Amino acid sequence: MILLTRKADFSSAHFYWNDAWTEAENERVFGKCSNRQGHGHNYTLEVTVQGAIDPVSGFVVDLKELKDIMEREVVSVYDHRHLNHEVPEFKTVVPTTENMAIAIWRRLDGKIPGAKLHRVRVYEMADLFADFYGEGA
Amino acid sequence: MILLTRKADFSSAHFYWNDAWTEAENERVFGKCSNRQGHGHNYTLEVTVQGAIDPVSGFVVDLKELKDIMEREVVSVYDHRHLNHEVPEFKTVVPTTENMAIAIWRRLDGKIPGAKLHRVRVYEMADLFADFYGEGA
Amino acid sequence: MILLTRKADFSSAHFYWNDAWTEAENERVFGKCSNRQGHGHNYTLEVTVQGAIDPVSGFVVDLKELKDIMEREVVSVYDHRHLNHEVPEFKTVVPTTENMAIAIWRRLDGKIPGAKLHRVRVYEMADLFADFYGEGA
Amino acid sequence: MILLTRKADFSSAHFYWNDAWTEAENERVFGKCSNRQGHGHNYTLEVTVQGAIDPVSGFVVDLKELKDIMEREVVSVYDHRHLNHEVPEFKTVVPTTENMAIAIWRRLDGKIPGAKLHRVRVYEMADLFADFYGEGA
Amino acid sequence: MILLTRKADFSSAHFYWNDAWTEAENERVFGKCSNRQGHGHNYTLEVTVQGAIDPVSGFVVDLKELKDIMEREVVSVYDHRHLNHEVPEFKTVVPTTENMAIAIWRRLDGKIPGAKLHRVRVYEMADLFADFYGEGA
Amino acid sequence: MILLTRKADFSSAHFYWNDAWTEAENERVFGKCSNRQGHGHNYTLEVTVQGAIDPVSGFVVDLKELKDIMEREVVSVYDHRHLNHEVPEFKTVVPTTENMAIAIWRRLDGKIPGAKLHRVRVYEMADLFADFYGEGA
Repeated sequence: MILLTRKADFSSAHFYWNDAWTEAENERVFGKCSNRQGHGHNYTLEVTVQGAIDPVSGFVVDLKELKDIMEREVVSVYDHRHLNHEVPEFKTVVPTTENMAIAIWRRLDGKIPGAKLHRVRVYEMADLFADFYGEGA
Repeated sequence: MILLTRKADFSSAHFYWNDAWTEAENERVFGKCSNRQGHGHNYTLEVTVQGAIDPVSGFVVDLKELKDIMEREVVSVYDHRHLNHEVPEFKTVVPTTENMAIAIWRRLDGKIPGAKLHRVRVYEMADLFADFYGEGA
Repeated sequence: MILLTRKADFSSAHFYWNDAWTEAENERVFGKCSNRQGHGHNYTLEVTVQGAIDPVSGFVVDLKELKDIMEREVVSVYDHRHLNHEVPEFKTVVPTTENMAIAIWRRLDGKIPGAKLHRVRVYEMADLFADFYGEGA
Repeated sequence: MILLTRKADFSSAHFYWNDAWTEAENERVFGKCSNRQGHGHNYTLEVTVQGAIDPVSGFVVDLKELKDIMEREVVSVYDHRHLNHEVPEFKTVVPTTENMAIAIWRRLDGKIPGAKLHRVRVYEMADLFADFYGEGA
Repeated sequence: MILLTRKADFSSAHFYWNDAWTEAENERVFGKCSNRQGHGHNYTLEVTVQGAIDPVSGFVVDLKELKDIMEREVVSVYDHRHLNHEVPEFKTVVPTTENMAIAIWRRLDGKIPGAKLHRVRVYEMADLFADFYGEGA
Repeated sequence: MILLTRKADFSSAHFYWNDAWTEAENERVFGKCSNRQGHGHNYTLEVTVQGAIDPVSGFVVDLKELKDIMEREVVSVYDHRHLNHEVPEFKTVVPTTENMAIAIWRRLDGKIPGAKLHRVRVYEMADLFADFYGEGA
């Protein structure tokens, strides 16, 4: 049983906003993130999978295949996009780092042949990240 | 004569677009950066100043003052903003990394007491940056 | 259930010394860290909290509030200080990375509204860090 | 109970190859890693140990001793070597990041006085790493 | 006049050896780098170009095109290769970081439409790099 | 003509203080850096040398020798030391990053066989560094 982690980057715009609140309430809770013109980040995604090593290849998972899945399921959908306006899951939930980790888990879970998704980590900045292990996904 | 460099970060949204071109031309030249919903980055700004060391303080420039100038002149204007829609200089020029370095030079030049602005470096991503030394600013 | 991690930096002086030992014993165990003039580091603190996501805000914890708590409880006390001489908890224990992680846990535990402190990580250098999960704190 | 992590670097050559397969099969599974001339990496090794803090020294483990053990048991054997041709454990298994983490665990386990080996992490590149916790070693 | 820098990574094997010397002389000068089985590195290449900004596109150089040129002229030739055995320029000169910077300059110079090659920087490790500005290339 | 840069790290304590000023003046100019108990940093030193490549070895300078010179002339004197109290050059000048770059230049200039010292860069933190090119040293 071993864990393998692969990273990928994407650059997106977003903002934090709750339609049920007034502009003043949004600004009080979300501060400068509530600017509806949006701002953006270079996100880093870390995907960790768990599995047994194939004794012939020495791999838990085919690295090229894992990269392709991350590209197809997440990066191609999020990269160079405005998360609030163009990514379906953020029509109804605020694209916080926490919610992004859960959304990415749902996009990847069950898609990686021969290995179990163990953790999704999303960095919004070098000094802020969220980890999701699938509980309650 | 010594050079001192200080960094600051800001997170902004932007896109690349030329109104004189058709959508197809914009996409051909700017690729996925032409998406007008915008995307975004964690930018890193490096400001280098040149001067003589004050023999009493040991400083080329007061570090706290330099930080405050960078904050007031650049970070407070660009951070958590959509560059195309909210920052005046990008109404007329595309907010490429190159144009951002020039715009930031113009915002800072002549504002740093006792030292000469030497270089403005802007990182859009860890693997892409522009340097401007003021020639033709 | 999700984990959110925020980083902060502080710069402090310290040295390793045990009054019950001779100078030679201190030097044998602590090497160059036993120099009582002190040396110093740029420390990086990672605080991880665990909680449920507020369905309205999308937050586990208010990021601004978490940053303020880390600043008030730890950074303002440790930053630009000599740990051995100016920080109470290191009057009686050696300020090793391990002991710092425990001391910071005690400073933060129970202070973060709506979330549970999960882990305190302290980097003394890029290649050395300690993790404390609260067991026996 | 606390965890302490120390890093070390080594630079090695390797390639991926299975003698039971044809050249075409090797290339299909291993891609450009199957080039038998070899390529190489700057590896980063993270060793995490778990233990109680010695109340006198403030250490879980003597840092100098831990560094020496990592140097003697791993770095001196792997660094500036061709893993496939010069390191015994990779005569029979492919030197993937996963297999390297297990091999390093076996080299270190039981060698660290007063502490328990908790995790071995090996980075092959900044965006790819394997974690092994000893299960089934 | 502005400078734009783009990075790329490649992973290669190499060793240092001079056929005119005895094994002992090679080991004395090159140390552990003289091991003819080879070792390897994750290299980082930084290519800096200089030019005027196109007032319409806002670019010094088309970023996609620059990336493609670096990929075609350098990365596809060096990556996952043994530099001594598989790259023509290192049949006759030792693949030191210095010689690699010059070799890459020669591969890129004159190939970048609309901009002048300004500097080639090659990192062999995070703590060692060479810069070449074309003088005497 | 090529440039080669090598890095080294050291960890030191320091504070900023001018005996000719009152405590209030020191605090006004130097802020929290004026705390005479001292604080500290993980410094990074980058030494750049310029020279011709030896056609036989492929080196501008023997890397092992450069590392040894940096260790002997700088790191062994500054590392795990209190700069104000234990390093002679900082008895009379404030150990700012700028003054440290000049002091290190003077320690290294003329000591590197076969190459010319080109630049000394000192990082006090990741976001603050000084460069000295020897003018007026």
